Amino acid sequence: MDTRIESDSLGSLKVPMQAYYGIQTLRAKHNFHITNRTIHPELIISLALIKKASAITNRDANHLDSTIANAIIYACNEIISGKFHNEFIVDPIQGGAGTSSNMNANEVIANIAIEYLGGTKGDYFLVNPNDHVNMSQSTNDVFPTAGKLAVLKMLPKAIWEIKRLFNALEIKALEFDDVIKMGRTQLQDAVPIRLGQSFHAFASLVKRDMTRLLQVQNEMLTINMGATAIGTSINVSSQYLNSIAHNLQKVTGFKVVQAEDLIDATQNVDGFVCVSGVLKTYAVNLSKMANDLRLLSSGPKTGLGEIFLPSKQNGSSIMPGKINPVIPEVVSQVAFNVIGNDFTITMAAESGQLELNAFEPVLFYNLFESIETLKNATMTFVDHCISGITANRERCEELLNESIGIVTALCPYIGYARSAKIAEKALKTGTKVKDIILNEGLLTSVELERLLNPMTMTQVTNSFNKEPVILDRLAI
Amino acid sequence: MDTRIESDSLGSLKVPMQAYYGIQTLRAKHNFHITNRTIHPELIISLALIKKASAITNRDANHLDSTIANAIIYACNEIISGKFHNEFIVDPIQGGAGTSSNMNANEVIANIAIEYLGGTKGDYFLVNPNDHVNMSQSTNDVFPTAGKLAVLKMLPKAIWEIKRLFNALEIKALEFDDVIKMGRTQLQDAVPIRLGQSFHAFASLVKRDMTRLLQVQNEMLTINMGATAIGTSINVSSQYLNSIAHNLQKVTGFKVVQAEDLIDATQNVDGFVCVSGVLKTYAVNLSKMANDLRLLSSGPKTGLGEIFLPSKQNGSSIMPGKINPVIPEVVSQVAFNVIGNDFTITMAAESGQLELNAFEPVLFYNLFESIETLKNATMTFVDHCISGITANRERCEELLNESIGIVTALCPYIGYARSAKIAEKALKTGTKVKDIILNEGLLTSVELERLLNPMTMTQVTNSFNKEPVILDRLAI
Amino acid sequence: MDTRIESDSLGSLKVPMQAYYGIQTLRAKHNFHITNRTIHPELIISLALIKKASAITNRDANHLDSTIANAIIYACNEIISGKFHNEFIVDPIQGGAGTSSNMNANEVIANIAIEYLGGTKGDYFLVNPNDHVNMSQSTNDVFPTAGKLAVLKMLPKAIWEIKRLFNALEIKALEFDDVIKMGRTQLQDAVPIRLGQSFHAFASLVKRDMTRLLQVQNEMLTINMGATAIGTSINVSSQYLNSIAHNLQKVTGFKVVQAEDLIDATQNVDGFVCVSGVLKTYAVNLSKMANDLRLLSSGPKTGLGEIFLPSKQNGSSIMPGKINPVIPEVVSQVAFNVIGNDFTITMAAESGQLELNAFEPVLFYNLFESIETLKNATMTFVDHCISGITANRERCEELLNESIGIVTALCPYIGYARSAKIAEKALKTGTKVKDIILNEGLLTSVELERLLNPMTMTQVTNSFNKEPVILDRLAI
Amino acid sequence: MDTRIESDSLGSLKVPMQAYYGIQTLRAKHNFHITNRTIHPELIISLALIKKASAITNRDANHLDSTIANAIIYACNEIISGKFHNEFIVDPIQGGAGTSSNMNANEVIANIAIEYLGGTKGDYFLVNPNDHVNMSQSTNDVFPTAGKLAVLKMLPKAIWEIKRLFNALEIKALEFDDVIKMGRTQLQDAVPIRLGQSFHAFASLVKRDMTRLLQVQNEMLTINMGATAIGTSINVSSQYLNSIAHNLQKVTGFKVVQAEDLIDATQNVDGFVCVSGVLKTYAVNLSKMANDLRLLSSGPKTGLGEIFLPSKQNGSSIMPGKINPVIPEVVSQVAFNVIGNDFTITMAAESGQLELNAFEPVLFYNLFESIETLKNATMTFVDHCISGITANRERCEELLNESIGIVTALCPYIGYARSAKIAEKALKTGTKVKDIILNEGLLTSVELERLLNPMTMTQVTNSFNKEPVILDRLAI
Repeated sequence: MDTRIESDSLGSLKVPMQAYYGIQTLRAKHNFHITNRTIHPELIISLALIKKASAITNRDANHLDSTIANAIIYACNEIISGKFHNEFIVDPIQGGAGTSSNMNANEVIANIAIEYLGGTKGDYFLVNPNDHVNMSQSTNDVFPTAGKLAVLKMLPKAIWEIKRLFNALEIKALEFDDVIKMGRTQLQDAVPIRLGQSFHAFASLVKRDMTRLLQVQNEMLTINMGATAIGTSINVSSQYLNSIAHNLQKVTGFKVVQAEDLIDATQNVDGFVCVSGVLKTYAVNLSKMANDLRLLSSGPKTGLGEIFLPSKQNGSSIMPGKINPVIPEVVSQVAFNVIGNDFTITMAAESGQLELNAFEPVLFYNLFESIETLKNATMTFVDHCISGITANRERCEELLNESIGIVTALCPYIGYARSAKIAEKALKTGTKVKDIILNEGLLTSVELERLLNPMTMTQVTNSFNKEPVILDRLAI
Repeated sequence: MDTRIESDSLGSLKVPMQAYYGIQTLRAKHNFHITNRTIHPELIISLALIKKASAITNRDANHLDSTIANAIIYACNEIISGKFHNEFIVDPIQGGAGTSSNMNANEVIANIAIEYLGGTKGDYFLVNPNDHVNMSQSTNDVFPTAGKLAVLKMLPKAIWEIKRLFNALEIKALEFDDVIKMGRTQLQDAVPIRLGQSFHAFASLVKRDMTRLLQVQNEMLTINMGATAIGTSINVSSQYLNSIAHNLQKVTGFKVVQAEDLIDATQNVDGFVCVSGVLKTYAVNLSKMANDLRLLSSGPKTGLGEIFLPSKQNGSSIMPGKINPVIPEVVSQVAFNVIGNDFTITMAAESGQLELNAFEPVLFYNLFESIETLKNATMTFVDHCISGITANRERCEELLNESIGIVTALCPYIGYARSAKIAEKALKTGTKVKDIILNEGLLTSVELERLLNPMTMTQVTNSFNKEPVILDRLAI
Repeated sequence: MDTRIESDSLGSLKVPMQAYYGIQTLRAKHNFHITNRTIHPELIISLALIKKASAITNRDANHLDSTIANAIIYACNEIISGKFHNEFIVDPIQGGAGTSSNMNANEVIANIAIEYLGGTKGDYFLVNPNDHVNMSQSTNDVFPTAGKLAVLKMLPKAIWEIKRLFNALEIKALEFDDVIKMGRTQLQDAVPIRLGQSFHAFASLVKRDMTRLLQVQNEMLTINMGATAIGTSINVSSQYLNSIAHNLQKVTGFKVVQAEDLIDATQNVDGFVCVSGVLKTYAVNLSKMANDLRLLSSGPKTGLGEIFLPSKQNGSSIMPGKINPVIPEVVSQVAFNVIGNDFTITMAAESGQLELNAFEPVLFYNLFESIETLKNATMTFVDHCISGITANRERCEELLNESIGIVTALCPYIGYARSAKIAEKALKTGTKVKDIILNEGLLTSVELERLLNPMTMTQVTNSFNKEPVILDRLAI
Repeated sequence: MDTRIESDSLGSLKVPMQAYYGIQTLRAKHNFHITNRTIHPELIISLALIKKASAITNRDANHLDSTIANAIIYACNEIISGKFHNEFIVDPIQGGAGTSSNMNANEVIANIAIEYLGGTKGDYFLVNPNDHVNMSQSTNDVFPTAGKLAVLKMLPKAIWEIKRLFNALEIKALEFDDVIKMGRTQLQDAVPIRLGQSFHAFASLVKRDMTRLLQVQNEMLTINMGATAIGTSINVSSQYLNSIAHNLQKVTGFKVVQAEDLIDATQNVDGFVCVSGVLKTYAVNLSKMANDLRLLSSGPKTGLGEIFLPSKQNGSSIMPGKINPVIPEVVSQVAFNVIGNDFTITMAAESGQLELNAFEPVLFYNLFESIETLKNATMTFVDHCISGITANRERCEELLNESIGIVTALCPYIGYARSAKIAEKALKTGTKVKDIILNEGLLTSVELERLLNPMTMTQVTNSFNKEPVILDRLAI
């Protein structure tokens, strides 16, 4: 393999001739052999967006020669368009608070720019990774800002899928509005409910998640570019300091703003903890919903069997004809993973010390995984499960008729204690609740028909419009 | 012990004659011997507030005889005023989704009301725990609503303490604004910072927590009263359904509103998960701050020693003169506990099934502990630590002068590579950075004075007003 | 209130005249107002046991006057016998690595001893909390050792309850050995199983927990008495160092041994993390079992309904006749709490720094709660649930006959693909599997009877003796 | 792309002609698009090992034609040797309890075997994935067993690295045995310690981890092969049942044994929870150690500075000369990740229902990551950090001489109270402790020299041999 020699203050190393990364990237590669993975493409692109905005700002402030600046901008655009991503070779779990990721970007950009200017890779007199590409920056402002941009790019895609989930649930709410079934609390027969109401409740639930995620995105809009090393803006001109956020807005399209307190913004990562917390809440809700679907579709013969999930694959290598609720199962597993990730993120955040949190790499590694796997799981949930659910109307009706929970509706008329005795008798003798009441002459059959009509029993009469609504233009 | 006999559908039990609770409370006491603790006073009061609002609503809707209603209201007022709390004997960790807590309230209120009407305890024909006190209600709407009211009462006290913490930090930010010291990233010397800036950053951090907590309180304002068993409002009249939230507003002073989707609101507890998530984020921030204070005050002779914490107690039973950072230590421990509680809450929420989450009791147990211990820890932090912190100005200056981190300020003038060599030389030879630069004729002493002035080096020049602000009328 | 004045190096305070605690306890009380609880009785007793063993050792080594030593021993015995526990007023979550708990013990013991010698409380020239009661000790060896002794006293009680649980499960395994029912994987009908086998599997599960807990207790037997401040045994004579563990063995009855590396043993708390980890595993298993019981007893009419849990209390304040699985519900909640506690313990352990872990108080607070609530929950589980479970034999048989899972048993004879088609047909047409096979002439009725006999289908033929065994003399 | 048509009970799909996987793998690929990763190579190999042992067992029991059996064995050997791994395309987080992974193996093995027998891929009459490759098996015994085998292969490599860590630490313990420095508790000056003792304590700590990991491996040796669907061994002959474990022993070299209770072993995954718990404990210990190294190496000028970590890379993109503790930082991050993984594993285990735990895929995903990243982090820790640590002897001595902690050694001679006053005076006036004592005539200089000699002060005099020991033949 052809190599070139590069040097830094620790000495020299051979770098593969064709590599756009340089010595510092290579040192990081040697030091951090942890996950066998590389950093997330959105993080790579975000680093390039920042480098581009900085080059523009430095050029406009006359700190950076415009030839060099333009070459850097060219290089950033290449990366933003998806090229050179395989030059980002550092492990996502790395020491050094992200310096290795930042230097990987600085070196790759410098070498692309160098070639653009007609030079040879490694000829850092033309374009220097630190002095030019990293000008007016520090890992300590670049890396957390890149993390925020990556979240801002990834989160809307997840929210989009949640919106699709909401719509899919509301369509089912409409479809199942006339399917009366028994409600259950603590897995014990309670009182009637409509299957459509159950799906509407799911929709109401994920709508809150959507709202919370849209809101928590704002935590990502406050960035610390211009803070440099520790937030005191050392080595940054006031022109740069006052323009970088604006330029980053233009380059990214996100309404990012500079933190009022750059020192705080450089050392604390609580905004990411908030995002993870809201994702965790969504994971909890998703898993609750998935569990319900597994319960309701249990069977086919010895379970609740009130709904059918679409058959997605043979369920068993040994039991013929077995179809399992594989999609809800994968959804819950993603939820468990996201909840574990939240704990890792929490510990990483708690461990920050003084002017910096050095544990952002593992925080990002987990946060990005949470967002992406939730997005993927939601998409799978919608397309391979929710949309294809059908009601087992006969089973719903059969169970409803067998149950004794309707006795609850009689309490206002005959009291709790007497109702309890009827319930007991019905359970013991197998006689239906209605028949006992008629036999005991407690109510007439006309009264009974009115009181025990499941349609009215499940009709909520509060003043809200409970019509399911399909979102078609949800602003994200 | 004198006893009376009470009966329910499971049989009879002897209840102590003087007890205001009844048979169902006693069964719960026997079944759940878990923590040796009782339910939180704010939960007791919240249950009474709900029972009062329900009695008013039922009375006004002519469902409940006004003599009985007024007796119930009298009984509730007694409990709200702090009496009869020792009649609440059920374990806070209980099965049954809170039914035992609700029935404990129903029975105690019934018996107080019975006596108020001249009856004898246990004479439930006068006032019945289920038919009268619990009229138009179910544990499944009462218990989660009571939990929300309790949080609404406890949280502002915690936020108040955080506001005091914010103020205490800002006062220190002002006091220490002229103390220049070395900043550290990854525990390695970085560039200068003012001690006041460090405290201002702490203040900025907790201000976010305050904002988030104020906001997340809104999650608690949506209640499901009127939902009864599963959200279909079974056994509830439209008058009750449409008035109960309004009456609860009047009784509590909180702007509670009825959930649009009562079915969702009855089965899901994600609002509590959100509150816990924000508390957890605050815990993370508190602990980070506490850790920083322990680092900065480490010593007295072999640590960083840049600040002095107030001496609160002898630090050691064996080492004379040792004073330890006991307050930051207790603060971090509370944070760890809150983080663990958050995971219990997460699991409890994830485990909800179908029309109900049966695990609210353990959720409340942990959530209430989180709020209260964070409140207490914050109060201790302010009064026994932050307010008494003093700067070790000599030490700050001494360390600053010894350090080489100021070389960073020269990068824009002499480049990163050359600056690195000077840093290396300074470290190896013990010569000061300034002297090396002068000796090597890189800059004149006038230039040096200007470039390496720590006051200007730490002067952030962006457009925000960084003046510390003391909050004195923060709306909570 | 009458008071006496006590002084320490921070100044003077008024201590209530009748108090046995002193100034350092009082300072701690003021500093740590966190949980409104006091330290665990077993921790108090363990502290007294250590002080007693130390006094014996110091007396025998002629370091401590025997009059003073005997007075201290007298005082310790009083505390060990359960007296003076209300003099231990410090909050269990405290800063200072347990110094406040240790000093609370030192002061109370000193004052009891002083009175025993005819002196007046506070007259520390007679018996000094530091110089005499704490002689040859440091909080840093006393407190972790006390924590271990407390665990050693509490854990066997929990293990005893688990043993009772094992027995109760095995009795049910025998009782239900002839109840054939449908097994379910992923909540979908699988193949037949005996109800007794399900309970035997539960028993096998908790037996492992029992074994693990018995084993992990050994982690608690290695103590660091003699280590004093940081493990270098400063201020400890070789006589003391070599006798203290032996004397503590005699005083406690536990086979405690001195750590080979006292420095390690003083700064690390991984042994507690291990204990908590095993408790967490038991919690996971308990909750899985509780969940299964809730599933199997779901109904009465619209669930699986294969077993009946004993009725423990009315299940609902609104729904008459409803009986809920309250005991499994409380068991799962305890499990969730223990899992959250485990994470608090993990964070506390991870936060140790250099020669000490200052976060033991919160670790103990959580660990003790985990042990006790698991013990209590297990006891409740056995007495109020497991022992009273009955089988719904008719339901088990009915579901088994309806199901199609038995088709699995035909695979070896007619292949997976053809079996799958029969299953599909049975499900679609409602025809029974057996009838399809006979109609299609695939097997004779004699063959079918043999192949589809559920008793033989559930007869495991490996070489182990699967007879349930009741443990009656399990060594703990 | 050329394709072939494959069918199952859900219909037909086009499979790429060259693919060795089949229709069921393809369905899984479509259903589970979650992580964009594939299953772990060791899991692939473990599946092949099981299929091989099963083929041998079935052949020897005359259930499987030996031509087919040998073709299957050939195919398994190919996979075991590392070939065809890219045919395993299913996502590691998958629904269906591992059925997709198992069927992926069955299909790939079948097609390799088919080609070996001269057939064409997809010609499952020759070798059938279900009837032949999966003969006498179910996903429910194959998948958990494969998980255990994978752990058994991966764990020893991690333990090996921990052994190397132990040795590296002991070498440092010897090297630094004469470096006296100040010990610190709660980050406050305590009493002297030798730097070698600190490293010996680290070694003692990780030695426990090593022992625990060696022990917990046994949890993985109990397998449930022969259990098939739910542990009742349906469709398994007694010959197979009694030989499979033995044959798997021979094929794998691991002393695996069949569970006594196959039903329990099929539905419970607590063994994995135990392994994760022990890994978590090691992670806690690793992180504590890493934190200590960061503290001790903090500086170079404004920190503790008692040790030097090897310089591994430039620490900053903006601050020249800055070298950061990047290796300890990455180690702690791995620890945080492992702790989060443990929570995911805990939730997955708790969620098992009835006869199966469907959440093993996410459990394995996290467990394998924990083992591998801990192995990698430990290797990096040894090679890039521990082995290159040097002591800053001058700094250690300088800090020791400045400190006042040595006053502790005087307590036995002049009492705690007087010692405290001397400490206070020394701190206030800056006079050295020794000088104050001499000035006040409390002790003679000869006495002082003896009492305050740091070498003797740090000499532990208990009976254990504290010599560091290098493990060279540790049995794993």
